Formats: sequence, structure tokens, C-alpha cells
Amino acid sequence: MKLATIRTADGGTQAVRVDGPTTVALGFPDVGTLLAQPNWRELATNAAPRETEEALGAGSAAYAPLVTHPGKIVCVGLNYRNHILEMGRDLPEHPTLFSKYADTLVGAGDDIKRPVETEELDWEAELAVVIGATVRRATTEQAEAAIAGFAVLNDVTCRDWQFRTREWLQGKNWEATTPLGPWLVTPDELPGGVRPALAIRSEVDGEVMQEDNTGDLLFDPVALVEYVSTMITLRPGDVIATGTPGGVGHARKPARYLQAGQQLVTEIEGLGRCENVVVADGPDGPR
Amino acid sequence: MKLATIRTADGGTQAVRVDGPTTVALGFPDVGTLLAQPNWRELATNAAPRETEEALGAGSAAYAPLVTHPGKIVCVGLNYRNHILEMGRDLPEHPTLFSKYADTLVGAGDDIKRPVETEELDWEAELAVVIGATVRRATTEQAEAAIAGFAVLNDVTCRDWQFRTREWLQGKNWEATTPLGPWLVTPDELPGGVRPALAIRSEVDGEVMQEDNTGDLLFDPVALVEYVSTMITLRPGDVIATGTPGGVGHARKPARYLQAGQQLVTEIEGLGRCENVVVADGPDGPR
Repeated sequence: MKLATIRTADGGTQAVRVDGPTTVALGFPDVGTLLAQPNWRELATNAAPRETEEALGAGSAAYAPLVTHPGKIVCVGLNYRNHILEMGRDLPEHPTLFSKYADTLVGAGDDIKRPVETEELDWEAELAVVIGATVRRATTEQAEAAIAGFAVLNDVTCRDWQFRTREWLQGKNWEATTPLGPWLVTPDELPGGVRPALAIRSEVDGEVMQEDNTGDLLFDPVALVEYVSTMITLRPGDVIATGTPGGVGHARKPARYLQAGQQLVTEIEGLGRCENVVVADGPDGPR
Repeated sequence: MKLATIRTADGGTQAVRVDGPTTVALGFPDVGTLLAQPNWRELATNAAPRETEEALGAGSAAYAPLVTHPGKIVCVGLNYRNHILEMGRDLPEHPTLFSKYADTLVGAGDDIKRPVETEELDWEAELAVVIGATVRRATTEQAEAAIAGFAVLNDVTCRDWQFRTREWLQGKNWEATTPLGPWLVTPDELPGGVRPALAIRSEVDGEVMQEDNTGDLLFDPVALVEYVSTMITLRPGDVIATGTPGGVGHARKPARYLQAGQQLVTEIEGLGRCENVVVADGPDGPR
């Protein structure tokens, strides 16, 4: 099953089930609100196609962020085994975690705002885990059951701000920089289920920048739900961004960064793609 | 003016104005929701004392977290000038920022949950700034006007988890560890206004552990609102925790940490105090 949050004519949003070429409205303002219903699977599965509409193209601005107001976006640093080893580092014992605020999110076809305050806007294609239950100190079984599904995210980062201090937050939390979408796909539709093994890639203006497989994650989605929920309750609609593979612009020689006018494509096999154009943004608004 | 969020008999919460020995209900579920009304000052000032109740003692469990679901809790690392210099460090050019999730919060008289997973639970008395307007790329004047008021916060931290990796998030985000309250006090009632100079202290079982003055902040509340809003929109109810002075347990020789049964008092002149008892918490619940 595929679920999405789309924008409506009245300026709001609604959760829909995506059935191949059509969408079915589900009666909730976004996928996060839907997932907060304990019987969300049933509600989404049984929804009658009263209001069937043509599904939207991948780059459509009609896709809102998959979850519009997640209570938590937990992000993981180094997590692709090949990338850690190629950087000459040891495999870490614990995941490195940081967070994004919900105001960073944009939809799968929205513009990414490149702030005038940065010179170093970079890409990080990531598999996003979306939580579908309330869990604390989850066992492996509880963690598996708490995963509603997966989506595409790009943890777009201002590298110059990321490294201003030792904490990464200020490189990671710029308004309207982080695509999340287009759909949530439930684990039953994916090879590997709650530990999916899927090709992941990013492209800038058609040039492949990152290419790996989510099966290479050192801390897999289930392990991350267990780890984070040790500390704090994970709730429906919370998002875990599982880290990015090699090939980011900052590590290239010479380094490369996103410029206004470029298109960033982030794609995961079976999860669809985000297609976002980079636009300049400053105190006087977009320009 | 003093505003608080108190628990109600039906299991909910409500925002109140605290008038010396009495409280007046304001018709909103918490102070965050009140602050989201553009005319919140007027609403709170003019509220008729229909339902006047006796005000609560400082340690009362009736105080909910001042804002129950802040969209952002932005925390500042090193920020007290004396403390930075006494540690032999240079004054930093930029504030170090990290974040807490809303599920970390407790009320001014609630128990602090000491997870069985930590050996090193530590205190960090902090001045909290509560946002009362929506601002992005705020000028100094806009930042001043966006500060609704101030409150007491203790950024209670699991040091062993904080230093597991280079990012601090996992030391800072344990459920029900972080008192925020008892009241918001508006700047007009404080010496220094939006840049208040107030004695700040923490005590463990009556022993003073930290003692400084919020006038010593390197990045003052207005500067922090300007800085954070450069990146991302600050919204009503968002909280900025401005950093802690010297005297934390981890830096003591020998190091000292919070144990179950101890009482942590966090007090700021003019803002009242949080009085929280530490209780053990594990997979089988409190014990």
C-alpha cells in the first residue's frame, strides 16, 4: 500500500491512498494524522474510492511533505558500511544522532530553498522510516511492528553552517530544504520488508552523485527504532532519516554544491522519487 | 504578568494567569496555544477572574510543562562567559546549538525520570526564552518583540550517552527529564527586560551546585532569536534554552551525578523555581 499527503484546492492537505494511476481520499489531513489512528491500516485499506482522482506525476507540487508536522525527525550520521570503511573509519558501536525541525520539510516536487547565507548547500539521499505506533524501549518485535513504512528523504545540508561549531544542528535546520515523499510504502511491498534492500541514488541535473543500496545500512531501520525508543517515546508520524551513502558534494575533489536553478533528484527503488528545483532565498523572499 | 499551564481534574491542562496568590483561567489548553493568538497579551491581561483559584506551591505536581508541545526546543551549549573562560576556552564566534524533543519535558514539580540505562545523570540550570510571535530572519527589533517571556529550565543530561558519539542529541533527549516552568514571566517585570540579568542557581538536596547571573550570557536572548531565526521560522511556544553556567556534576572532581531520591532545585531570580525529585525509571516503569 502507498500513502501520500497531497495539497487541496482550499490550501489544506489530505491523506490519500495511491492505487496505481489513481488516488483515494482517506479523510485525514495528512499521513501523520492517519497513522495516529490505531486502526490506520484497516482505515486506509478499506477506504472506498468515492473520490478517485488521477495520481500525480513525481515532480508535482501537489505533494505536501509526507508527514506535515512530525513530532520528531531523528537523523543518523554515518551509517552506510561501504562509505564508513572507504573514509578509513572504524565501524561505530553506536549510531550518531541529530535532529531536524518540521519546518525544514518540503514535498516531493517542491522547490528547495537555497539560503543566501550559505555557500555550501549539499545533498544527502536517505531512506526515511515512518513510525506507525507508539513505542518506548521497543523490543525487536515491537520495533518491527512500529514501522508504518518507508519514504525518500534528502537531508539537504549547509556544510559551512554544519561545521561552524561541533554540533551539526545549524547545518541541518534551514527552512524548506528537506524533501520527504512522495509516498509512504508499507514494508509488505518491499524486498527485505522492514529491513529493505533497495537501490538508492541522487542526481544533480541528471548526473548521478550517490548510488548505493539501503541493505548496506550498519544500523538498520529496526535497530534504529529500538535504539531511539530506548531514550524517548516514538509516536505515529515520527520520522527517522537513516543516513546517507558516499558521494556527497562536500567530500568531492573539488567540492561541489547546489546552485539555484539546479534540479536535485532523490530516488529509492520501489519508493519513487523526489524531484526538487533549487531556488535562491533571502530576506526579501525567493529570487 | 505571569502565565502558567496547570493540570485540570479531567486529565487535561489549561493556561492561567498567575496573580500573586490566585490564578485566572484563560480558556486555552496551554501557554503555547495562548501565545499562538496574535492578541495573546490582551487576552491574558483582560481575562476576567471568573474562575479564580488559589495559586499552587512551587513544588506542585499541578504544573504541567509551561508549553506542553513546543514545535522546537533549541538548546545552546557553552554560553556563560565566566564558565567558558574558566575552562580555558576562547569565546566562540557562534553559538553551539542542539535540540530536545517535547517528550523530554516535565512540569515544575514533577518527578525527573532517571533511566536505568544511564550512570551519569547531570543537571544544567538554564534560562528559557519562550517565543510569542512568528519570526524569520528577525532584526534586533523584531527579535526583541518576539520574546513572550522567560522561564526556568533544567537541561538534565545523561553524560555517558551524550559522549557516546560526537553529537550530543542522545544525552539530551531522555523522556521526562527536563523541567520547564513554573511560569512564564513577561520581560516588563524583569530587570534588563528582554536581556534579563537575574541570579540563576541549582541545588541538589539543598547543596548549591551552580550559581551565576543570566546577565553573563555571551549570546543573549535577543541575539539567539536573531541567530536561530536566520535559519528557520520561530513560532509561538517555541523554546530556546540559553545554556548553563559552571558547576555541573560531570566537571566536578570527583564527578557527581543525580541519584534516585534526590531533589533537584532550579531557581532563577524573579522566575520562581522548579523542585523535582529524581525517580528511577526502567522497562518495567518507575521503581
